[in-house]
Amino acid sequence: MGELCFVGLGLRDERDLSLRALETLRGCHRVFLEEYTSRSTPGTVERLEALLGRPVELLDRADVEAETPILSALAAQEKVALVVVGEPFAATTHVSLRLAAQDHGHRWKVLHNASILTAGPSLAGLSLYKFGRTCSLPTPHENYRPRSPYEVLAQNTRAGSHSLVLLDLDPGASRYLSAPEALRLLASLETEWHEGVLPPGRRVVALARVGSDDPQVVVGPWEEVSRADLGPPLHALILPGEPLHFIEEDALSRWPRAPPGPPVGGALP
Amino acid sequence: MGELCFVGLGLRDERDLSLRALETLRGCHRVFLEEYTSRSTPGTVERLEALLGRPVELLDRADVEAETPILSALAAQEKVALVVVGEPFAATTHVSLRLAAQDHGHRWKVLHNASILTAGPSLAGLSLYKFGRTCSLPTPHENYRPRSPYEVLAQNTRAGSHSLVLLDLDPGASRYLSAPEALRLLASLETEWHEGVLPPGRRVVALARVGSDDPQVVVGPWEEVSRADLGPPLHALILPGEPLHFIEEDALSRWPRAPPGPPVGGALP
Repeated sequence: MGELCFVGLGLRDERDLSLRALETLRGCHRVFLEEYTSRSTPGTVERLEALLGRPVELLDRADVEAETPILSALAAQEKVALVVVGEPFAATTHVSLRLAAQDHGHRWKVLHNASILTAGPSLAGLSLYKFGRTCSLPTPHENYRPRSPYEVLAQNTRAGSHSLVLLDLDPGASRYLSAPEALRLLASLETEWHEGVLPPGRRVVALARVGSDDPQVVVGPWEEVSRADLGPPLHALILPGEPLHFIEEDALSRWPRAPPGPPVGGALP
Repeated sequence: MGELCFVGLGLRDERDLSLRALETLRGCHRVFLEEYTSRSTPGTVERLEALLGRPVELLDRADVEAETPILSALAAQEKVALVVVGEPFAATTHVSLRLAAQDHGHRWKVLHNASILTAGPSLAGLSLYKFGRTCSLPTPHENYRPRSPYEVLAQNTRAGSHSLVLLDLDPGASRYLSAPEALRLLASLETEWHEGVLPPGRRVVALARVGSDDPQVVVGPWEEVSRADLGPPLHALILPGEPLHFIEEDALSRWPRAPPGPPVGGALP
């Protein structure tokens, strides 16, 4: 019987690992890491290898979804770790892997870590308790333009709940949806479905590089924020549910508004 | 100008600190820790002092809310840290402190960590994206029986969203609301307000000691779970929004149901 340990990497790199996680990883026979559901800072794998004194095996999406590399390692070894950026079970695929390991008679455990779901709202200064359902905004393709993220935002808006909007990313192709791009996409969905998700002047919060040494937060009407330059990924958005608590108002007032100017970044399909 | 660094301790003890947090704390002139919004494992303060080689000053609720100890330290020193169990800005009081520090011209930064808000759902195997607003259930007193947590649960239930219910705790008095007690409390509120939060047989998930080496999860109809013995605190509850995704169903099916038997624990006021 093997043991599969899901280890949260946190928001950035190997130095976000806890002392407990580091000790656990050092006690594992095989250490895998996947970066397709999110991504760590470049060089993390190499630095983690140096820290552990053992190889770290990088898995791509197909490897994790096929479950073969990890189930084979479990069958042959006692302890196997999968390091996941953020909190390990934010993506369904990791829960599936845990169920598959159980089906094969293996034990599992989890070492939790910071997630954008709590870190983003915390950084902005908005109450975690007031967030409704989170949604993930995909880059639209010709035949793929799902309505569900917009519906979640409409429902939260009607309920006065805050919304966290996670943005599509494809680390393998180095493609990351930016917050300004996401706002222009939401504006086009609003034009199509007009349920009040992005009425003129609605205040939004754009987040960039949460958990890094240079996080950035910009607050303002969506038209202004959609012209802001927030720098490198990862980005996220918050649509605050109005009215805000006075402490939330105070916290948002400390962040800069987006600088006026021409649109930044490329057009969306 | 001083710098106030909010450091998330994570779910349990000093070994949940990240390598980055440890390094940051070692570079601070004063290190404070508060345990009234949640609590760490006994002995954490002493072990953290040993790890840092410097004293850790314990703050109670009045100290944090008055803001005086920390603002005084900031006025006199360059770098001050406040260590908070879980994710630092889950409680309004810490956002207020950050605003006060800014008002006095100080810089601030945050080192995020795991929170029960994401760790609880992750452990259970429920989709983080399907959670509506979180609520915190207070122990009712004679003149204090707020309706708002019940309203949040009713709203989430109607929307088919999952609900995370955090439970009242008073670490100073070593009083912790248990999951079975909370269910009996919710049942009494249901009798009073009958909005379908806890109809007969509704499936609930009780969590205990999330993030520890012996986390416990019990799933079943609330009447059974309200008789379960989940051991020491901290506890939390999840009311899943139905219907569940098949992976969620599969994940919940792996947890034990509550053992049948007489009620465990004392009656609530």
